[in-house]
Amino acid sequence: MSKLPDIKQNFPEWYQEVIYQSQLADQAPVKGCMVIRPYGTALWENIKNILDKKIKRTGHQNAIFPLLIPLSFLEKEAKHVEGFAPELAIVTHAGGEKLEEPYVVRPTSETVIHYMFALWIKSWRDLPMKINQWANVMRWEKRTRPFLRTTEFFWQEGHTAHETLEEADAEVETMLNEYIDLAENFLAIPVLSGMKPESEKFAGADKTFTFEGIMPDGKALQMGTSHLISQNFAKAFGILFQNREGVQAYPFLTSWGASTRLIGALVMTHGDDKGLVLPPAVAPIQVVIVPIFRKGHDAQKLVEVAQKIAASLQDKASVHIDRDEHETPGAKFYKWELKGVPLRVEIGPRDLEQNQAVLVDRLGMAKRSVSLDHITQEILITLDAIQAEMYKRAKDRLKERVLPSGKLVEFGNDLANGSFAYQTGWCQSPECEKVLKEYKATIRCLLDQATQKTCFNCDLPSVCDVIVARAY
Amino acid sequence: MSKLPDIKQNFPEWYQEVIYQSQLADQAPVKGCMVIRPYGTALWENIKNILDKKIKRTGHQNAIFPLLIPLSFLEKEAKHVEGFAPELAIVTHAGGEKLEEPYVVRPTSETVIHYMFALWIKSWRDLPMKINQWANVMRWEKRTRPFLRTTEFFWQEGHTAHETLEEADAEVETMLNEYIDLAENFLAIPVLSGMKPESEKFAGADKTFTFEGIMPDGKALQMGTSHLISQNFAKAFGILFQNREGVQAYPFLTSWGASTRLIGALVMTHGDDKGLVLPPAVAPIQVVIVPIFRKGHDAQKLVEVAQKIAASLQDKASVHIDRDEHETPGAKFYKWELKGVPLRVEIGPRDLEQNQAVLVDRLGMAKRSVSLDHITQEILITLDAIQAEMYKRAKDRLKERVLPSGKLVEFGNDLANGSFAYQTGWCQSPECEKVLKEYKATIRCLLDQATQKTCFNCDLPSVCDVIVARAY
Repeated sequence: MSKLPDIKQNFPEWYQEVIYQSQLADQAPVKGCMVIRPYGTALWENIKNILDKKIKRTGHQNAIFPLLIPLSFLEKEAKHVEGFAPELAIVTHAGGEKLEEPYVVRPTSETVIHYMFALWIKSWRDLPMKINQWANVMRWEKRTRPFLRTTEFFWQEGHTAHETLEEADAEVETMLNEYIDLAENFLAIPVLSGMKPESEKFAGADKTFTFEGIMPDGKALQMGTSHLISQNFAKAFGILFQNREGVQAYPFLTSWGASTRLIGALVMTHGDDKGLVLPPAVAPIQVVIVPIFRKGHDAQKLVEVAQKIAASLQDKASVHIDRDEHETPGAKFYKWELKGVPLRVEIGPRDLEQNQAVLVDRLGMAKRSVSLDHITQEILITLDAIQAEMYKRAKDRLKERVLPSGKLVEFGNDLANGSFAYQTGWCQSPECEKVLKEYKATIRCLLDQATQKTCFNCDLPSVCDVIVARAY
Repeated sequence: MSKLPDIKQNFPEWYQEVIYQSQLADQAPVKGCMVIRPYGTALWENIKNILDKKIKRTGHQNAIFPLLIPLSFLEKEAKHVEGFAPELAIVTHAGGEKLEEPYVVRPTSETVIHYMFALWIKSWRDLPMKINQWANVMRWEKRTRPFLRTTEFFWQEGHTAHETLEEADAEVETMLNEYIDLAENFLAIPVLSGMKPESEKFAGADKTFTFEGIMPDGKALQMGTSHLISQNFAKAFGILFQNREGVQAYPFLTSWGASTRLIGALVMTHGDDKGLVLPPAVAPIQVVIVPIFRKGHDAQKLVEVAQKIAASLQDKASVHIDRDEHETPGAKFYKWELKGVPLRVEIGPRDLEQNQAVLVDRLGMAKRSVSLDHITQEILITLDAIQAEMYKRAKDRLKERVLPSGKLVEFGNDLANGSFAYQTGWCQSPECEKVLKEYKATIRCLLDQATQKTCFNCDLPSVCDVIVARAY
């Protein structure tokens, strides 16, 4: 293992290296794809389980739709195909023959799911239809980065159909709020959220809502989206139902998704010069116990105590005992810090004599000896404290990185450097929005606040505050 | 909903219809693919969770590898590409350009995983490496049937590397046994298991072990396989490790997989003229409570009692209350029988007066009234009894369908009709095996028994018993 690049001097290189060295992921021998290694997969499974429970608790059911979609399906919704055409991977041959109609590897599944909705939905009694799919999707991206933008990525995509616009609007909001809860209360990532401007909407949506983190380098990261889908999809796929008045009507549709990109957000938001820092709520290993083997002392005894602690935490915390007898304690500390394990427990022969162990949290809050008599409780309390502290620190950094500011002429230079995001005003004209291109920045979302009187660019009144930033 | 085809007269049509009508799956608008509907997905998730726990408990870790594989990777192992070439789906264009090298949609992941193994495995300390992947794979099949053979299917594929042949052999056996335990103790499907003959091995394996059910129509269904992979893979991908003696050596490899085909096995093994019959251990809904609403009686009271029963079963059984007020009780019974829910609880106003409810099991074992005072316990006991009875009945049917028999001349006609499987002897010559083609039958597996003295075809001594059958 080589030293990590300096996180302050070279954040992008640090990001790639920490992912490879901590064994979250590796480069795949396929352009723009990654292999998610066991450590990264365990992290993804933890995130997935939390989100899957939320999705089910809010009345959705999982289903599985095909990987391949007839190209003609995408062409049924004009804006949709326009948005995705440049990124498609296309299957032209199969079973030793050229296909009559090519298939695309799904970039998202609206089209095929709406095709099925048209078969399944006949009456208002069939509504709401609330479906979710965990799937791999593919978008042929030019520049890729592990977890943040990969050709193949892994996500869930929710697709629902409702009787009324009000219900569909409520669904879009409910799922956005579930995502925000996941981000803030499990991933310990404070987010900004709101509607996207017209220019940044999903290809085929009437409205797109986003939740975004501001990374330590000042750039915004879109972590997921929730869309009110255009009625055009219902029309294009002939989704019709008999409403309560006996009249044929088009249902109102939504879709919402979050992906393995959440792992990229975790890495960037919490990482430090020693490596990853993972929040206890999703860490694959929450506690690593390192017995400090010393010559002339009973190694077996140390392992037994470690096992006893681990057993006392069963079903309460995920624990790993590092029994390797070849590595030095120092090398082990380095390794588990790199992997971002939130809490380390050290037990050496002298600790044992004193009936204690040493707790070292990954945040450097405190290193303290605790009695073996109540170590289980102490460990659980410390894990909670780490989770809370991680959120607090991330929230403080967010505040430092999002500056309130009135005019682009004042903050333009710093915006172009990408070191900060700005909460400013906007007149909602596309012309003013376009000016941001010169700064490589975009309007990330519209806020429910109105602290600014005029637009960041012109002198017209601001309709609402917006977040302006460069973005991943 | 239309009537199901007669299960005895027309098993294949019954099979397709029961899957569509029970809403396990639907046809997708993609050749040979299916949509797994929420009910089928919930069933698959239950099976997946059981198998995933087994895989983790036996020391494997999940990882995620890319969907696309460079075509050249498959060509590195001669038998492998020969076996899979006719079934490949090929991506030739992506991102608006023709690709320099086409990619195949993985038919299985040995090649790309072995490529990564070569990067990850350096020393005996890195072994054993025990990886599993849950994934979608694609094989362009000519004739498809939902769950049994679909162009895209869903599975887990385990891939491991070991220091010694003995360890690899043990791994192959361990995972075969885990599969058998899943089949028999959770899916309630008794299976036959053993080694495949040379002709039926996985493309690139030294040895393939299989576990197969014998379906009610007498045909064998391969439910999963466990392979000792040829050293050629390690050589082709340059997987080399420094062994304990400091010498560079090739590791011994295994792979093993089971798929959504298990659902096909469940449907066929247990289904009856009323529809699906699902074993409680994997049923998405184990208990359906049907309040029998009668005019002039308090519907709300019935629902409250149903809710109380459901609450008492929380975390113990999955319960659905059918509160629909438009459907008749008869229509509900029909629907939940079709869906194979193992246990139905009926509560009408008169039952309530007598402080009781009626339990009706899906097997037709008994219909009985039980006191509401100890209904929770009664329900749990009945679910266990249903699980046991399902296995027993399936075991009895297996015995009826697998006949001991000496000579092909005697059983050939019935074999060709496909109504029975035969346990017979084999000299292990490919010539005798080939004769079975005329009967559209194959040797399904070699058994550890030797009840027959001579080969089914010639007069040479039998080496071991084999199962001969037509197969799905």
